[in-house]
Amino acid sequence: MRRRRVLDADDIVRSLRRMAHEVVEATRGGADLVVVAIADGGVPVARGLVDTLESIRSVAVPLVVVDPTQFRDDAEPAGDPRWLPPIKVEGRTVVLVDDVVFTGRTARAALEAVLRAGRAQRVLLAVLVDRGHRELPIRPDIVGRNLPTARNEYVVVDAAGVWIEAEGR
Amino acid sequence: MRRRRVLDADDIVRSLRRMAHEVVEATRGGADLVVVAIADGGVPVARGLVDTLESIRSVAVPLVVVDPTQFRDDAEPAGDPRWLPPIKVEGRTVVLVDDVVFTGRTARAALEAVLRAGRAQRVLLAVLVDRGHRELPIRPDIVGRNLPTARNEYVVVDAAGVWIEAEGR
Repeated sequence: MRRRRVLDADDIVRSLRRMAHEVVEATRGGADLVVVAIADGGVPVARGLVDTLESIRSVAVPLVVVDPTQFRDDAEPAGDPRWLPPIKVEGRTVVLVDDVVFTGRTARAALEAVLRAGRAQRVLLAVLVDRGHRELPIRPDIVGRNLPTARNEYVVVDAAGVWIEAEGR
Repeated sequence: MRRRRVLDADDIVRSLRRMAHEVVEATRGGADLVVVAIADGGVPVARGLVDTLESIRSVAVPLVVVDPTQFRDDAEPAGDPRWLPPIKVEGRTVVLVDDVVFTGRTARAALEAVLRAGRAQRVLLAVLVDRGHRELPIRPDIVGRNLPTARNEYVVVDAAGVWIEAEGR
């Protein structure tokens, strides 16, 4: 397995800071925001984003986690989404956060989960890495880094940075 | 009600022709396509697109209509989508067609309807007019014309062209 680092931890911090400013701009000051992390990969990214948002705005920004598995188009329909903790999205701006967007299928499933929770005024999608190859008409509003990848490559985000891994030698 | 024409019938034909070529490019020749029109506004646009696709490819392109009303986030959940006629989308490329995209809520509902019909290999969104003001992270892949509009304006598509209507004097 070949592995190369494309962003280091400092790059991630810088990207998150700029993304937080984009969230504030896009929401005209960031009033009445809810940040929803897509489990599992979106959680550390969303935490970083919320920390930066709170330092910019000096206001608490609620962070919740959604597991969109049951809303995937290859999953059996199930009950209500598992929210940790439960949220009220009615009339609010939701920032849906993931580490990587690829086909768009996970983001679409998470969007479904958010819409199931109530009529948000607006849903923004923020991702640390957009690796292309979309299969659905889903567009991240806020992107940390565009990393065009081959289909046999993977993008891994950890505390040390963002890595591209390729199958084979 | 003020009303001004921004595209005439010939402009629409030219846009549809270019859009059809974009569909063929995006799908590497347009094999195994299904065109799904979003009722009601998407139907004439989808017909025009299918006619052009068939003249380019000399192959029949199936056209079906979906009414996404029941998948809207302000609607009560209901049964299966009403397809006219029923389609098989499994493994195929679906081109979802509407006349105008605005908040993205109708397109999102139609995307849900398509995904409910089976696991499409890919879903492209093609719209004649993108008027901006998106409230969901939905992106049309193929756009006839970007027409930035105010929120109190409307975009109307008819056989004579595309019109922007504004409330008030």
